[in-house]
Amino acid sequence: MIKVYTANTPNGIKIPIVLEELGVEYELTKLDLGNKDQKTAEFLAISPNGRIPAIVDEDVQDEQGKPLTIFESGAILLYLAEKYGALLGESAVDRVRALEWLFFQMGGVGPMFGQLSFFSSTDVYPSKNAVVRFRVESHRLASVLEARLNSNAWLAGAHYTIADIANYGWLHYAEGVGIELQEYPKLRAWREAIDARMSVARALRRVDNPDSHFVDSMVAAALQA
Amino acid sequence: MIKVYTANTPNGIKIPIVLEELGVEYELTKLDLGNKDQKTAEFLAISPNGRIPAIVDEDVQDEQGKPLTIFESGAILLYLAEKYGALLGESAVDRVRALEWLFFQMGGVGPMFGQLSFFSSTDVYPSKNAVVRFRVESHRLASVLEARLNSNAWLAGAHYTIADIANYGWLHYAEGVGIELQEYPKLRAWREAIDARMSVARALRRVDNPDSHFVDSMVAAALQA
Repeated sequence: MIKVYTANTPNGIKIPIVLEELGVEYELTKLDLGNKDQKTAEFLAISPNGRIPAIVDEDVQDEQGKPLTIFESGAILLYLAEKYGALLGESAVDRVRALEWLFFQMGGVGPMFGQLSFFSSTDVYPSKNAVVRFRVESHRLASVLEARLNSNAWLAGAHYTIADIANYGWLHYAEGVGIELQEYPKLRAWREAIDARMSVARALRRVDNPDSHFVDSMVAAALQA
Repeated sequence: MIKVYTANTPNGIKIPIVLEELGVEYELTKLDLGNKDQKTAEFLAISPNGRIPAIVDEDVQDEQGKPLTIFESGAILLYLAEKYGALLGESAVDRVRALEWLFFQMGGVGPMFGQLSFFSSTDVYPSKNAVVRFRVESHRLASVLEARLNSNAWLAGAHYTIADIANYGWLHYAEGVGIELQEYPKLRAWREAIDARMSVARALRRVDNPDSHFVDSMVAAALQA
């Protein structure tokens, strides 16, 4: 069984989406990020950066013979795609393209949209200049995606891959950080095609209705111990 | 032959370092980022995000039968490690750990140190609050690396991998963005061990003394055409 620790966020929805797409069974535990569940010692043992998502693959042993933990959404997406032999295209070149646009999301779209979101709402480090800087950069990245999708159905080329799922994370929430997609017709159509996938609807519903909540799981484990 | 397009930057040095470590022959072309070489149509055909590094592997054909281009430093590191069967540890678990800390760099250290650098020097979007925000976050990430290296020789565990090379990129330049490593003895020792590798010395020297410069290459190609 694969246990998923996640929440309703751009990175958090990626893992349920890929697991639904693969048709793999999993248990979903939801963390309350406002309650800082992700900074507890119990969670840091799974995810040392104190961030969601993370998984535990109970069917694989780690260095010490314990169930394998994995953090970082990009590492999890790649691990699952490779484990189940899917969502990386068909050819070796497809796989390279999927990796390029996966890393483009991890190093570009993720942090830039993320910082736009942060500076749009922080009381601790307010900065109008930072909001403008990250809005400009987010639009620049959207235009790079638009150009790519102008000549390709999916980011890696002809096939839907983990690169699409990764980039969908923030694009799903784009309007929430003030990035409207009117100027990007190809990107909008790409997002609509992903919105329409059953796997995406199921994943988003499941994050809203998790199997358990992190704090409850810890209390239950403590009572059993 | 592998052609490398790069510059003296935290992302730019990663690829020569990995190629020197692998003992693979390559041609190094240096871009003048101040001159916006990376935004030329010629370079965007290789690297659609307009960023260095990028490579062309002339021994592999892409979708159209042309030499394979790859952009995004993380995708290139993984491609080269897999192509030459090295720098991903020994076991499947080692490989997962290498991917975790590779993505940690791409989504964390890279953008946070990068934005600290940006806001420390920009005249366009000056913001003291953004400098503070990214300094705090860079130190937090350094402390996550410190904790990891407190119980492991290398980021993926027992073996030197592309995760170390990726994270070394910004750590090599840390003092340049005001991140001193006094508080991080394990991280400092890890960096010194990488500094001492012959492959790193050779790579850094080669970026300073490239085989060619991008603008000169374009002029030469135009004269040949």
